[in-house]
Amino acid sequence: MLEARTPMKVSEAVEKVLQIEAVHNKTETVPLQEAGGRILAEAVIADAPVPPFNRSPLDGFAVRSADTKGAGRDTPVTLQVIETVGAGHVAEKVPQPGEAIRVMTGTIMPKETDAIVMFELTKEAEDGSAITITREFNSWDNVVIKGEEMEKGTVVLEAGERLHAGGIAALATFGYDQVQVTAKPVIGVFATGTELLEPGDPLEPGKIRNSNAPMVVEQLREAGAAPVYYGQLPDDFDLCYSRVQNVLGDVDALITTGGVSVGDFDFLPAIYEKLGAEVLFNKVAMRPGSVTTVAQWNGKPLFGLSGNPSACFVGFELFTGPWLRHSMGDKKPYLQQSKALLGSDFPKPNPFTRFVRGHITFQDGRLIATPAGLDKSQVVTSLSRANALIVLPGGTRGFQTGDQVAVLLLRGEGEAYFEEPVKDR
Amino acid sequence: MLEARTPMKVSEAVEKVLQIEAVHNKTETVPLQEAGGRILAEAVIADAPVPPFNRSPLDGFAVRSADTKGAGRDTPVTLQVIETVGAGHVAEKVPQPGEAIRVMTGTIMPKETDAIVMFELTKEAEDGSAITITREFNSWDNVVIKGEEMEKGTVVLEAGERLHAGGIAALATFGYDQVQVTAKPVIGVFATGTELLEPGDPLEPGKIRNSNAPMVVEQLREAGAAPVYYGQLPDDFDLCYSRVQNVLGDVDALITTGGVSVGDFDFLPAIYEKLGAEVLFNKVAMRPGSVTTVAQWNGKPLFGLSGNPSACFVGFELFTGPWLRHSMGDKKPYLQQSKALLGSDFPKPNPFTRFVRGHITFQDGRLIATPAGLDKSQVVTSLSRANALIVLPGGTRGFQTGDQVAVLLLRGEGEAYFEEPVKDR
Repeated sequence: MLEARTPMKVSEAVEKVLQIEAVHNKTETVPLQEAGGRILAEAVIADAPVPPFNRSPLDGFAVRSADTKGAGRDTPVTLQVIETVGAGHVAEKVPQPGEAIRVMTGTIMPKETDAIVMFELTKEAEDGSAITITREFNSWDNVVIKGEEMEKGTVVLEAGERLHAGGIAALATFGYDQVQVTAKPVIGVFATGTELLEPGDPLEPGKIRNSNAPMVVEQLREAGAAPVYYGQLPDDFDLCYSRVQNVLGDVDALITTGGVSVGDFDFLPAIYEKLGAEVLFNKVAMRPGSVTTVAQWNGKPLFGLSGNPSACFVGFELFTGPWLRHSMGDKKPYLQQSKALLGSDFPKPNPFTRFVRGHITFQDGRLIATPAGLDKSQVVTSLSRANALIVLPGGTRGFQTGDQVAVLLLRGEGEAYFEEPVKDR
Repeated sequence: MLEARTPMKVSEAVEKVLQIEAVHNKTETVPLQEAGGRILAEAVIADAPVPPFNRSPLDGFAVRSADTKGAGRDTPVTLQVIETVGAGHVAEKVPQPGEAIRVMTGTIMPKETDAIVMFELTKEAEDGSAITITREFNSWDNVVIKGEEMEKGTVVLEAGERLHAGGIAALATFGYDQVQVTAKPVIGVFATGTELLEPGDPLEPGKIRNSNAPMVVEQLREAGAAPVYYGQLPDDFDLCYSRVQNVLGDVDALITTGGVSVGDFDFLPAIYEKLGAEVLFNKVAMRPGSVTTVAQWNGKPLFGLSGNPSACFVGFELFTGPWLRHSMGDKKPYLQQSKALLGSDFPKPNPFTRFVRGHITFQDGRLIATPAGLDKSQVVTSLSRANALIVLPGGTRGFQTGDQVAVLLLRGEGEAYFEEPVKDR
């Protein structure tokens, strides 16, 4: 009954999960307005220089700079305004010496003109037919030169970038009204536990509601996957096995919550064995979630997360999230890591490395990490708002306010490589 | 033509926008699996204590602690195991003195038992009919007491909380399979600018593609709104006016990009006037985006964002985003603010407070803010990845690496009150 499991270091376990071959590197083309949050599957190339023509960055007058030579307060130069051109239009006339064209911000430079004089530096005739200038302008003064910001053919964004509003703007600029992104991995979720009711069910003696599955489904959604909740696995090994086997063809990965410990109804280890899945690890040197198990079957990871809600959450963020982002082609799949100062005492000593949900705030430009749920009256609210995992190394004493700790930032995904976060201590 | 506009301080302008009465504080009920990212419109109340019954936190044996008195290495106590109960089930038998029940993690405590002995501390008979214990247990050892974590009726989450995975778990725990959230504000978007092509159009002389509208639509989506893009406003005042007027009844707010400056085709100021809208400000003491204009009409804000892409982005994040979150009932509508050290030189002197898109990294537990787009070859990529606005106060010289600056964090929304970020300098 009691099998001996050898705990694996967290960093080693993460590496093992990310080495699972991604057999499902599918891509799809989506319209630009649906591309936000997705991962680019193709490089974005500038189809034109930026700006695509010499243009005026101001509302003003396009002039031949030679005409302004000698202009001064006492020697004003008067130019005839022969046309007004709005942005997006092209001047129809070509100014001769002594002539100017009134242009709006963004207008393509009219032929023969090579400088812009802003409205504020001119005196305009009442009928708008002429302007007076009292200073000299040089060639290309106030003109944005074609290609000044970017040459045609430049790689603007590389494959593997996650698209935010700025990336959407870049795609639009270069004519992408649709774009290739990586497909959302389809991730199946089963809950296990005969004590579980679904959230809409009334409570019964001995039973609790299933909070892990809705939580994991939301974690999947936040990470950019397409979750499919298959309900609860039954309390019978053969039925369990066949339900798991039946869905494996339809998903890119499978998550189960519960069933990986050593209780009489913890069927997952035996299911992995019967499937012929390779167990990458079944014990991790951490709390909570030491029983977190990951196996692979035909290149698909099977995440056996703990049934304990905190352990389930942590197991997802440490192992499932990075694998998901990696398999979507995200160049930065890991949780962003930083150091922080502890914002409150954590008096509980613990022999194992502990990943505690907490909240990051900033004080004088420093990260402050406060464990959630120490204050009982605020436990759910604080867990709900948690935006980091605080890494507390194992030790015989607790931690004090101001101690330096490592933190892994949730929702700040993918910016840093995940290394063993305790090594700096 | 050139009207005199008085610039307003950024903090004052933000306050004015947030004072616009929210006439559209609608709520809706959504199923739990669609509640992620939404703002709670109702408080979540614990419908049962947590845990809802005395329960075993371990796989082990439920015993009568009195039976273990006197147990020791040399004085082992043997108990008869009369039943095995899985989590979610209720023991059918009631142990008499000298009897125990085998239970799994999460099981409701069988009647008459008051302590749990974990598997590892027992020696089990081969046929499972009895166990031997070699130490004493006290009443309630290893038992989680009903209501220990939370009493029934506790307010678990208050209205105004944004729901992440942890909040979804809390809702599930307390039986919410659907929940009241605030409705997504419907925000109309018009682009203006006769130079604009849509992203799918081929380039023409003098024209550029419309990148602001797709960008703003994505910013709206990220902020949790329901964007509606109405296309480009025509190059004719009367047509512009009637198109704006026609959609005002259908939206909770209207965004226009461009058309707020002093060019000949900048119609928005005149449109606001003809609508009878109250202009809250039409010049802000900042760069880029000094022409950002916000008006209100019948309690609906009209955001006149600049046509310059950087200014448009900044105007949205400073004014539209906070208003949106506020109108959705988010208790923390502002951009989170912090201090940071500048990660690279910013040599450009500027007389005005400048909001520069940049990227936050962490070094030794400190925030480092690096302006995006200084390196021309990386300009688009870095803007696309930007996760902060760096606030550079006006001055006659530039800034050096290591200078302390204020930053406003994008995508870390709503954690701090927005105050004039330059006041600490």
